[in-house]
Amino acid sequence: MDDRLFQERYDTYRSAIEVYLDRLFQSKKMHVPWQDLYESMRYSLLSGGKRIRPVLTLECARLGGIRDWRLALPFACALELVHTYSLIHDDLPCMDNDDLRRGKPTNHVVFGETMATLAGDALQAEAYRLIAEAPKLTKTAKLDAVWSLAWASGANGMVAGQVLDLTDFGHDRETLTTLCDKKTCFMIKAAAEMGCAAANASREQTAALAQYASLLGLAFQIQDDLLDVIGDEATFGKPIGSDKDEGKTTFVDLLGTDGCRAEVARLTGEAIAALHDIADAAFLKELAQRLAGRSK
Amino acid sequence: MDDRLFQERYDTYRSAIEVYLDRLFQSKKMHVPWQDLYESMRYSLLSGGKRIRPVLTLECARLGGIRDWRLALPFACALELVHTYSLIHDDLPCMDNDDLRRGKPTNHVVFGETMATLAGDALQAEAYRLIAEAPKLTKTAKLDAVWSLAWASGANGMVAGQVLDLTDFGHDRETLTTLCDKKTCFMIKAAAEMGCAAANASREQTAALAQYASLLGLAFQIQDDLLDVIGDEATFGKPIGSDKDEGKTTFVDLLGTDGCRAEVARLTGEAIAALHDIADAAFLKELAQRLAGRSK
Repeated sequence: MDDRLFQERYDTYRSAIEVYLDRLFQSKKMHVPWQDLYESMRYSLLSGGKRIRPVLTLECARLGGIRDWRLALPFACALELVHTYSLIHDDLPCMDNDDLRRGKPTNHVVFGETMATLAGDALQAEAYRLIAEAPKLTKTAKLDAVWSLAWASGANGMVAGQVLDLTDFGHDRETLTTLCDKKTCFMIKAAAEMGCAAANASREQTAALAQYASLLGLAFQIQDDLLDVIGDEATFGKPIGSDKDEGKTTFVDLLGTDGCRAEVARLTGEAIAALHDIADAAFLKELAQRLAGRSK
Repeated sequence: MDDRLFQERYDTYRSAIEVYLDRLFQSKKMHVPWQDLYESMRYSLLSGGKRIRPVLTLECARLGGIRDWRLALPFACALELVHTYSLIHDDLPCMDNDDLRRGKPTNHVVFGETMATLAGDALQAEAYRLIAEAPKLTKTAKLDAVWSLAWASGANGMVAGQVLDLTDFGHDRETLTTLCDKKTCFMIKAAAEMGCAAANASREQTAALAQYASLLGLAFQIQDDLLDVIGDEATFGKPIGSDKDEGKTTFVDLLGTDGCRAEVARLTGEAIAALHDIADAAFLKELAQRLAGRSK
């Protein structure tokens, strides 16, 4: 896909996502006594980020044949709310105890541990409200979205991944892949599924796009581990070497930097191959290639 | 309603709830490496409690004309999962920092702060999975249940209530009523609404039962404040005077013990009056009266 066309579409999606998110929890206009909660939620929700997950939702909705991809914004942003809550809680002192996220102080550093915990809790609930209230989508679409999101982020998904990440339960490749699946890939897969749900896409199309997303997720995580070793701190947005400092086993420990590069390339190829029967998939192919080559 | 009949129905509901909850997250049978997460979730989920909220859901489903009240168990228990997550997080060191809940060590005392936070997070997600997967209920029913639960427990509901509870933002009656509404009543109201949703009850019936539940919630909280002052520690299950120790303003501070008793009686009467047009409401009337007279 042409560089300019890709960037244009990515920016269009991303702007729509930012506008949608910015309209949520407008504490200053509401003057409620729990205003700090809204500010804490908005602080993390609007702190930038690449918005890969919601962009994936919107593109999958478009590919699934939705009348207007903007109709999928509530689903895309619901997933981003859950993703954001997980980052806030992951950074807490009782979890990774991180002070920086995307180069900015983490939520609990700014708002305190109590408010950060509550902001995460509220973001999770609000995600389901957004799905339930999404205008002009079918009930089937909404329930499929609720299920995909709950499954991906629940006790057998993202939270289990976080438990594995914080537990010294094994350092082999299988274990690390399970961890990455649950903590990262499930949610990226859910992003694709929720886009397909919004469009009432066929089962085959949903399966292909979910497969693409899973492979993308794994490639993404390996690239992330690699950047933690070879990246540039200012570009990457968090301290280089933080995984090592925290004593975590990463794909770099198992495969080496060259092995990681090769694996990212292989998974990216597989992800693109999964799109074989999807028409008009140039954007997703380009997305996979860009993520494999990213430096932040 | 006859005492024995009331107790029989309550016990039937409660047993069904306990059995349903006990089947969830059976870590020992699954041998997963994140088994501790499941054990932490089950510890709080199965730690007793009166199960008033899910009982209310089941009875409202029955009154709404559901074919079999057991079909509403996933909704009833989804709400109980969210209620349980809120208790786990409320007890955390960064919130109320409580060591005891219902006479037992709190979740973080047993499993540590990290796991307690994650168990709460997972319980919230799993609640929505239960709703989405509920067999034999309509899509409308499920989406209404998702919406009721998300609204009641979100940034304008239960979490806002918790923020108010932890913030020194005012001690007048209006403020305390808002706090109680959000922290307690919204969820009890949602319990009734979710039962009505399961049965596809009429709008009028749902409104009446929701009104009953809201009034019941406020009466319940005032009685709770009263028991914190005049209760018996062993019966009540938590230390008497803990509200005062934590410097919280309660309804006892505003109304006195006699004033609280009168207010509980008044609200209970109003709750029962809200059932005026509901046929076969003897169980709910008895429930309101028993909660007003409870000592634990």
